[in-house]
Amino acid sequence: MKISILGGTGNLGKGLAIRLDLAGFDVFVGSRKEEKAKKLAEEYNEVAEKFGGGGIIGVENEKAAKISDVSIITIPWEHAFETAGKLKNALSEKIVVSPLVPMRFENGFARYVEIDGSSAAEKLASILSESFVVSAFNNIPAKRFANLEEKFSWDVLVCSDDAKAKKVVMDVVNKIEGLRALDFGELKNSRIVERLTPMLINLARINNLKPLGLRFD
Amino acid sequence: MKISILGGTGNLGKGLAIRLDLAGFDVFVGSRKEEKAKKLAEEYNEVAEKFGGGGIIGVENEKAAKISDVSIITIPWEHAFETAGKLKNALSEKIVVSPLVPMRFENGFARYVEIDGSSAAEKLASILSESFVVSAFNNIPAKRFANLEEKFSWDVLVCSDDAKAKKVVMDVVNKIEGLRALDFGELKNSRIVERLTPMLINLARINNLKPLGLRFD
Repeated sequence: MKISILGGTGNLGKGLAIRLDLAGFDVFVGSRKEEKAKKLAEEYNEVAEKFGGGGIIGVENEKAAKISDVSIITIPWEHAFETAGKLKNALSEKIVVSPLVPMRFENGFARYVEIDGSSAAEKLASILSESFVVSAFNNIPAKRFANLEEKFSWDVLVCSDDAKAKKVVMDVVNKIEGLRALDFGELKNSRIVERLTPMLINLARINNLKPLGLRFD
Repeated sequence: MKISILGGTGNLGKGLAIRLDLAGFDVFVGSRKEEKAKKLAEEYNEVAEKFGGGGIIGVENEKAAKISDVSIITIPWEHAFETAGKLKNALSEKIVVSPLVPMRFENGFARYVEIDGSSAAEKLASILSESFVVSAFNNIPAKRFANLEEKFSWDVLVCSDDAKAKKVVMDVVNKIEGLRALDFGELKNSRIVERLTPMLINLARINNLKPLGLRFD
């Protein structure tokens, strides 16, 4: 299966690209400029090779979207909607994953930013009306995830209004070592899921702990 | 330290009474009628004795509240506020713990019930204006918790506007094997914590899992 990581410059993009490569998927790292994408892919492959992988390919965002069955939008939420709008045609009939969490920091504490009273995933779905939008990976501590030495056991809540697309994404999640996908119903429930991330960040800060992931047990 | 479990007939009350007894606290199980409280204490002591405890005492709610340093309100949320109002004087200047989660079931799914746009803990604090209200134990799967054979590793989010009371409750939580207290700031944050419980219940239902607790890791 071909998976693209669109705007994969951040830690979540890095962790996803390398870990999905190691899980055996064909991974495309997308960026606005092909040159930058190729450079990123090179950097990620260097890490992946140490663990027996290294097939990540860098391409321009639109091309990545067109090639792939599943595209994960790892663009900062402030720019994600605009970029998604430009990729609307390329992403048509495709599965699009939203790990987006609209957040701002105030006095060191994370605050969720309300998007039209719903969620970032729903906003994305309203823009990409011809795609199958699934929310997932919203609560992953990105810096730890990007570190391939890191061991974890986290749950990933997956929401979508399309049962088939949700199943595909859950299978992808479960292929990543240390992650377990949990079905959390319709896309609307991403409102709850996205709001867990500022909670996790604030909990870690108040209790002086490392960045925290979620486990239901 | 003397801890009372007010209205301890349910699974959460049972689990707390026995586990706090085993942790070395002086535990008072409260009920509206002394006779019922004594019967409950007897029943709980039978279990506790198997694990080396068994000092639980049954008394009428008001007496339990007056004796104790910390009172945990394990009354169903529909009745909790009224009962708390009657115990206002007995609970004055005391630490009161709210594990309350206002919830209803619709088509098998749990739905949070909004209380004056805030949380059950804040409502309780507005009634018990002379007590130190702390929210804790809201996300514990009660049935599993009541089973002393059950092994778990759960986090308990603790919120309060009184730092001293919060510290006391966190220390109590940490004495229970398998529980870890995490400071989650002011009482207002109980709005977030209480809303996690229907999420946990629905997640377990959708994914066909046993009742789920929370672990941040």
